[in-house]
Amino acid sequence: MEFTVSQIAELLGGKVEGNGEAKIKMLGKIQEAKSGEISFLSNPKYEPHIYETNASAVIVKKGFSPKKKLNTSLILVDDPYSSFTVLLEEYHKFISFQKSGIEEPSFLGTNSKVGDDVYRGAFSYIGENVKIGNNVKIYPHAYIGDNVEIGDNTIINAGVKLYANTKVGHHCVIHSGCVIGSDGFGFAPQSDGSYKAIPQMGNVVIGNYIDIGSNTVIDCATFHGDSTKIDDGVKIDNLVQLAHNVKVGKHTVIAAQTGVSGSTEIGSNCVIGGQVGIAGHIKLANKTSVGAQAGISKDTKEGSKLWGTPAIDVMKYQRSYAVFKNLPDLNFRLKQLEQKVLNLPTFRESE
Amino acid sequence: MEFTVSQIAELLGGKVEGNGEAKIKMLGKIQEAKSGEISFLSNPKYEPHIYETNASAVIVKKGFSPKKKLNTSLILVDDPYSSFTVLLEEYHKFISFQKSGIEEPSFLGTNSKVGDDVYRGAFSYIGENVKIGNNVKIYPHAYIGDNVEIGDNTIINAGVKLYANTKVGHHCVIHSGCVIGSDGFGFAPQSDGSYKAIPQMGNVVIGNYIDIGSNTVIDCATFHGDSTKIDDGVKIDNLVQLAHNVKVGKHTVIAAQTGVSGSTEIGSNCVIGGQVGIAGHIKLANKTSVGAQAGISKDTKEGSKLWGTPAIDVMKYQRSYAVFKNLPDLNFRLKQLEQKVLNLPTFRESE
Amino acid sequence: MEFTVSQIAELLGGKVEGNGEAKIKMLGKIQEAKSGEISFLSNPKYEPHIYETNASAVIVKKGFSPKKKLNTSLILVDDPYSSFTVLLEEYHKFISFQKSGIEEPSFLGTNSKVGDDVYRGAFSYIGENVKIGNNVKIYPHAYIGDNVEIGDNTIINAGVKLYANTKVGHHCVIHSGCVIGSDGFGFAPQSDGSYKAIPQMGNVVIGNYIDIGSNTVIDCATFHGDSTKIDDGVKIDNLVQLAHNVKVGKHTVIAAQTGVSGSTEIGSNCVIGGQVGIAGHIKLANKTSVGAQAGISKDTKEGSKLWGTPAIDVMKYQRSYAVFKNLPDLNFRLKQLEQKVLNLPTFRESE
Repeated sequence: MEFTVSQIAELLGGKVEGNGEAKIKMLGKIQEAKSGEISFLSNPKYEPHIYETNASAVIVKKGFSPKKKLNTSLILVDDPYSSFTVLLEEYHKFISFQKSGIEEPSFLGTNSKVGDDVYRGAFSYIGENVKIGNNVKIYPHAYIGDNVEIGDNTIINAGVKLYANTKVGHHCVIHSGCVIGSDGFGFAPQSDGSYKAIPQMGNVVIGNYIDIGSNTVIDCATFHGDSTKIDDGVKIDNLVQLAHNVKVGKHTVIAAQTGVSGSTEIGSNCVIGGQVGIAGHIKLANKTSVGAQAGISKDTKEGSKLWGTPAIDVMKYQRSYAVFKNLPDLNFRLKQLEQKVLNLPTFRESE
Repeated sequence: MEFTVSQIAELLGGKVEGNGEAKIKMLGKIQEAKSGEISFLSNPKYEPHIYETNASAVIVKKGFSPKKKLNTSLILVDDPYSSFTVLLEEYHKFISFQKSGIEEPSFLGTNSKVGDDVYRGAFSYIGENVKIGNNVKIYPHAYIGDNVEIGDNTIINAGVKLYANTKVGHHCVIHSGCVIGSDGFGFAPQSDGSYKAIPQMGNVVIGNYIDIGSNTVIDCATFHGDSTKIDDGVKIDNLVQLAHNVKVGKHTVIAAQTGVSGSTEIGSNCVIGGQVGIAGHIKLANKTSVGAQAGISKDTKEGSKLWGTPAIDVMKYQRSYAVFKNLPDLNFRLKQLEQKVLNLPTFRESE
Repeated sequence: MEFTVSQIAELLGGKVEGNGEAKIKMLGKIQEAKSGEISFLSNPKYEPHIYETNASAVIVKKGFSPKKKLNTSLILVDDPYSSFTVLLEEYHKFISFQKSGIEEPSFLGTNSKVGDDVYRGAFSYIGENVKIGNNVKIYPHAYIGDNVEIGDNTIINAGVKLYANTKVGHHCVIHSGCVIGSDGFGFAPQSDGSYKAIPQMGNVVIGNYIDIGSNTVIDCATFHGDSTKIDDGVKIDNLVQLAHNVKVGKHTVIAAQTGVSGSTEIGSNCVIGGQVGIAGHIKLANKTSVGAQAGISKDTKEGSKLWGTPAIDVMKYQRSYAVFKNLPDLNFRLKQLEQKVLNLPTFRESE
């Protein structure tokens, strides 16, 4: 990648001040950027760095007026952070999508259709009756089971396992070691204390613009025709567990190592912290926010903010925990008071 | 798969009412089943659905007498849910075991013996001196280290890793990304603050009829001749961690993301919730039940039900937590009482 | 492996008592060792076993004088446990490093350099511009992305995934299913409630003498030029999550299923228990010790020992938890006292 400052300004709809012909090869932090790199200034407290930076260009807010001499070109835009994000995305696309073609050996089952400009890494496996869209990247050691469908522009990283019948939408990124569609944990207790596996015959349906972290597991639904379902725009971190028949609504974010038990429905625009546990067969309303390590055991109300196990309102939890930290003192005060009351002359009389 | 209603009734030891010649291709929920599917009615609250269902047959309890006209055939059995489970299992076997033969390229080390009707997916790896039983399914990207033994009818899903010397029994299902036999976490502290790895030279022995979830990890035992050991009928969910030298007794169930530290022994018929942490070198008695996210730090008694960190009796934990939620109020009451007592005329006199 | 007792004594700098010509093939526990095996006696409470053992040799402390007749040879050393550890390591090296050569099919990208005596298992994948040192073992299904560097004597187990640009030092062991260098979980909220992925363009740098457990995930840093960084001698257990830009100092130990959020810095010689959660953007001072399942939400002081969520001093937590267990009783006592005070004759008068 190599662009001029002017070309980048045009992409961002911004205005150049300084040398528009300077060459940009890379993005960097304003404190650390080198010549040939572009950076941004959003938070005013970083302003001193702009007078020291070695970056060849810095994206700044319209109306920025330097207090000292600058050794860098400027691109003036409405929102420097958001403009920089656009550049990051472009760069990332450039990097991520440079892989193409077919490395051998790779495996393609019968009746499977693969779109245009698809990368199929060495040792990638595509089963039977699979449909893969255009511009999909399938890295080495990825396993795509029978009847799977994958939409355009989706990236399946190295070692991802998609069980048979999984559906993944377009513009998704699934990270290494992620397992999607494995059997839900359903076992019918028998009279002798043993368990019989309840066959899991549904599938998993992943929408569009979804990111799923490394080594996360999403189990398939129990019944044929049912799906564990992740809606558009959901972001799931690493090592998350989503059990059979779970539903996750649009634009919900789930941090690392959180577990959601079977048949629970999480609304849209929720923010779930790391290492949270969510019980089965409950509903989290839209915009529910859950603190790290909390345990959610029942339905939540829209916009609620929860913490603790079992979880309660976050402010209430913090106030209770503040007293918890002093419980030995509280206990001591209570003992003293009991003693005092017992020793009251009137109290002794009145007994 | 295609059977008549009569053929299925015979398999279940049930009696047909209605059209015994109707064709069944699939299983479905009573609310959603289509023509050609079979469903079941167990919970009376679902009875209204039987008069509306499009299923070609419904399994019902002997003695069921419809209150309205039915458009479906019936199969009358002693226990509809359990009969349906039998069908699910048959169907699942039918699906799971349709893979067979050897896909290329696959790798088979020297001196390894493979039974009859074994599926070896493309890019599966079998090391040296391995013994694999009949009807075993080894999916793509599975890694079977040297000297591993696998019993009949076991399914090793895509990307499972079995380190050298692991033993797996018959009728097991091991899900994708599961790692069995990796080094236990044992390090001897040195005087300079660094650690020396204690070589882990034992193995893992998995019994029969065991299910292990995706991305779960089971470490090998420390000493040569010792084994981390999972007994028959144990069911382990996804992303579980079992450390070196752990033993798990028969028919114990462990939910997702639970971790068990080194050398701990879990009895039989225990039920361990999700995200539970269990300390090392302790014993959980048979039929111990542990609530989600609990932390078990010492031996348990048979049949105990525990919650909290460190875990106590579940009822006791709930009662304490009920007070915890009102601790600020309790603290306030105590302060008021202190004030009242201080202000007592007699109290002031008696000081 | 077969050595004489004398050869082993020489390796350990110890002195033989008994038959120096006895053959040793294996290591074992003193209670269980068979003929041909060597064991050790460190803890005096195990002394009775030395008179019963079938081991051909036992390593004991200088000055040990048997109280009964021995049927085994002795090797006298300064520290039997540490000497046994040395033997274990030698044995482990012997086992681990016996794999060598190239199994086919395996993949090697253009411009990649591989050192001497490297094992490349079947279905292992090495991308472009990769540098691999001498005596490195790369097991089957390992994925080594473009521009990765791996130092001498490092073991990359089956199915490990190293994203592009990852650097791993020498004498490391990375266990199966481990994912290093995947995208950090960074998403910029947009005004319509959706999220835009912030491209993650840094890498991960792993030092020397580091062990990383199975299915652990370490994300790359956000900015180009930045690294998520693990210092020399760090030991990380299974299923751990280290987010983008995390730093871990020398000789720190992190137990299984712990999660560390983005940009947090953990000092050296820390001991982090299992299932711990650590918030983002904080600093744990050197020698911080954290109990299992704790949640760390702010900076810690050197040598602090913490427990609970949010974590406090471990002793303080235990004392508070002791009262917590009796909260219903405490609440009852407070109620009684309130009643008593209300019923005081003087109190009623004074109101």
